[in-house]
Amino acid sequence: MSEIKLKNYKMSLLVIGSLALDTIETPFGKAEYTLGGSATFISTTASYFLDGVRLVGIVGNDFPAGEIEFLKSRNIDISGLEISKSKKTFHWHGVYHTDMNQRDSITTDLNAFEDFDPVIPENFRDSEFVCLGNVNPEIQKKVILQLRKPKFVMIDTMNFWIEGKLPQLKETMKLVDMMVVNDSEARMLSGEDNLIKASKKIFEMGPKMLIIKKGEHGALLITKDFVFIVPAFLLETVFDPTGAGDTFAGGFMGWLSKTGDLSPANLKLAVVYGSVMASLAVEKFSLDGIRSLSREKILNRLNEFRNLTHFDLVSI
Amino acid sequence: MSEIKLKNYKMSLLVIGSLALDTIETPFGKAEYTLGGSATFISTTASYFLDGVRLVGIVGNDFPAGEIEFLKSRNIDISGLEISKSKKTFHWHGVYHTDMNQRDSITTDLNAFEDFDPVIPENFRDSEFVCLGNVNPEIQKKVILQLRKPKFVMIDTMNFWIEGKLPQLKETMKLVDMMVVNDSEARMLSGEDNLIKASKKIFEMGPKMLIIKKGEHGALLITKDFVFIVPAFLLETVFDPTGAGDTFAGGFMGWLSKTGDLSPANLKLAVVYGSVMASLAVEKFSLDGIRSLSREKILNRLNEFRNLTHFDLVSI
Repeated sequence: MSEIKLKNYKMSLLVIGSLALDTIETPFGKAEYTLGGSATFISTTASYFLDGVRLVGIVGNDFPAGEIEFLKSRNIDISGLEISKSKKTFHWHGVYHTDMNQRDSITTDLNAFEDFDPVIPENFRDSEFVCLGNVNPEIQKKVILQLRKPKFVMIDTMNFWIEGKLPQLKETMKLVDMMVVNDSEARMLSGEDNLIKASKKIFEMGPKMLIIKKGEHGALLITKDFVFIVPAFLLETVFDPTGAGDTFAGGFMGWLSKTGDLSPANLKLAVVYGSVMASLAVEKFSLDGIRSLSREKILNRLNEFRNLTHFDLVSI
Repeated sequence: MSEIKLKNYKMSLLVIGSLALDTIETPFGKAEYTLGGSATFISTTASYFLDGVRLVGIVGNDFPAGEIEFLKSRNIDISGLEISKSKKTFHWHGVYHTDMNQRDSITTDLNAFEDFDPVIPENFRDSEFVCLGNVNPEIQKKVILQLRKPKFVMIDTMNFWIEGKLPQLKETMKLVDMMVVNDSEARMLSGEDNLIKASKKIFEMGPKMLIIKKGEHGALLITKDFVFIVPAFLLETVFDPTGAGDTFAGGFMGWLSKTGDLSPANLKLAVVYGSVMASLAVEKFSLDGIRSLSREKILNRLNEFRNLTHFDLVSI
C-alpha cells in the first residue's frame, strides 16, 4: 500500500450538522439516548483522517459531558459547538424492522436544534473543505456565505427538503461542488429515472459531482467526466444502519481534506474510504462502530474492499 | 492486458436450454418473432470465447433457416439441435414497462419445447463445462446424468421451479458446482434475507458457488472462500433487458471453458466477462446486441468495467 506525500498542504475540514441523542431500536437490540446526529458521525469519522476537524453545531443542557470529552479525545475542534442553556438536545427515536432499509421515526424532538443558526467562528472561515450535513438548505447557504474561499463544498440533503424547500435547495446547490443523495432522491430532484440522466439534470443545478447512495447496493460517484461504483460491504449482520450515510460522508471528506487532492483517482479512493468507514459503523450500535478504531482495522477493511471488486485484465 | 497461456487444454462447453421466437415490447419499441431463448443467448455469447460450443435444444418447423445459419456462422455445433416436424417454435411475448426491472408475460406458448427431452449426442458427453439454462430441474438432472465426467456444471433456475418443483430442484442441485439465481430467488430458496446467510444455506444443498444476480445493481459471486461483486454497467438507455441473465451466464461459462481455470482470480474475471457481455446485450433489442461483436468492442467494455471499480490503495 503506498503512502501519501504532501507538500505544504494545510488540512482543514469544517463540519456542520446536527448533534443528537438517539433512541434506536433494531431487531438486534435497543439503545436509549445514545450519541447521534449527522455532525457527530461526520466529524468522528473524519477524525481518523486528520486532526482538528472543525465542528459547528448545537447541543442542549442535558448533553453528557463525557461525550464532549469524547469529541475532544478525537482531536475535534469543538470551539464552534454551542451549548443551549435553556433547551435539551435534539432527540430522535427510530425503529428499524427486519428489512433494515426501512425505518420509522417515532419521535423527532428538535429542542435546541430548532434554534440552530450557525455563526462560523472567525478562525474556521478559511476552511478549505466543508461538509454540510443534512439540514435546512437555507442554513447550509448561510454557512457557505460566511466562508472565505472554500476549495470544496459538499452538502447532504433529503426528500424532506426536496419536497418542502426546493427553491431554497436550488439556491444552495448553486454554491456547492458536490451533493450527496440517495437514488430515490436523485430521481425525485431530477424527474429522471435513469441515474446517468438524473445526474446530468442535477449538474445543471450547480454541483459538479454527485454521490448517489444505494444502501445495501453501495454508492456511485458521478462526475461530468467519469463514473465510479463502490459496492456496500457484504456483512452477515447489519447491527444498526443509523449514521451510515454520514459516516460515508465523513470518510469521503476526511480523505479529501487529508490529501487536498481532487484528481479522479483520489476522488475514487475517497469514495472507498467512505464505504470502508460506513461498513465499520453499521457493525455496531449507534456510534460504537467508529468510536475507537485502529489504523490497522481501517486498512484491513480497505484491503477487503479491494479484494471484493478488483480483477486482473486478461484478454479473450 | 495480459494474454492467457494454455497448455494441452481442450476446450468444451455444452449448452442446454430453450430456443424461442420472442415478441418483445419495451418503451423503446417492439420486435415480433425475433430470435430468443436461454440456449440461444448463452451459446451465442459463449461463441465469442471458444469455437464449437455444443448446443442442445429443440425448435419448431417454423424456425427461420437464416437463424440456423446464424448459429452456424458463430461456429456453434448444432448437431444436438432437434427440429420438430409437427410443432412450432416456443413463442414468448413479453412487455416491459418504464421500470425495466418489471415485465409482464402476455403469452408463453411452449409448442415444440413442451416435448424437450434432451438426448445428449455421444460426441458431446465428454463435455468438461456444462451450462444448463433455466428449464425444468428434472430435465437438468437427466442431462447431467448422461455426461461422462464434467469438470464444472452450472444451472440457472427461477422462482417458478423453486415454488413448483422444489424436491426435484434439490435433487438436481446435489449434482452441480454452481447455481445462478437472482437475489429474491436466493432468499426464497434459503429462507434467509441476508445474502451471505442465504448462500451458506444453499451451499448445504449442493452447489459450491453461487452467482446472485441483482439486475441494475450488478451481480455477486459467492463461494465458500470469497465474495466478489461486479456492478452493472451504468447505461443511459437500457434498450431491452431480455436475455441479460443468459448473456451473463454465456460470458461467464465462455471464459471458464476457454481457460479451464477455476482459480479465484479467474472466476472473478469470468464474472466480469459475464457482465461485459450482458451490458452489450441490453444496448440493443433482443439478440441484436451480441449478434456481431468485434473483439475490440468486448475488450473496450472490459476496460470500462475496470475503470468503473478499480482504485489504487493509499494508506491513511
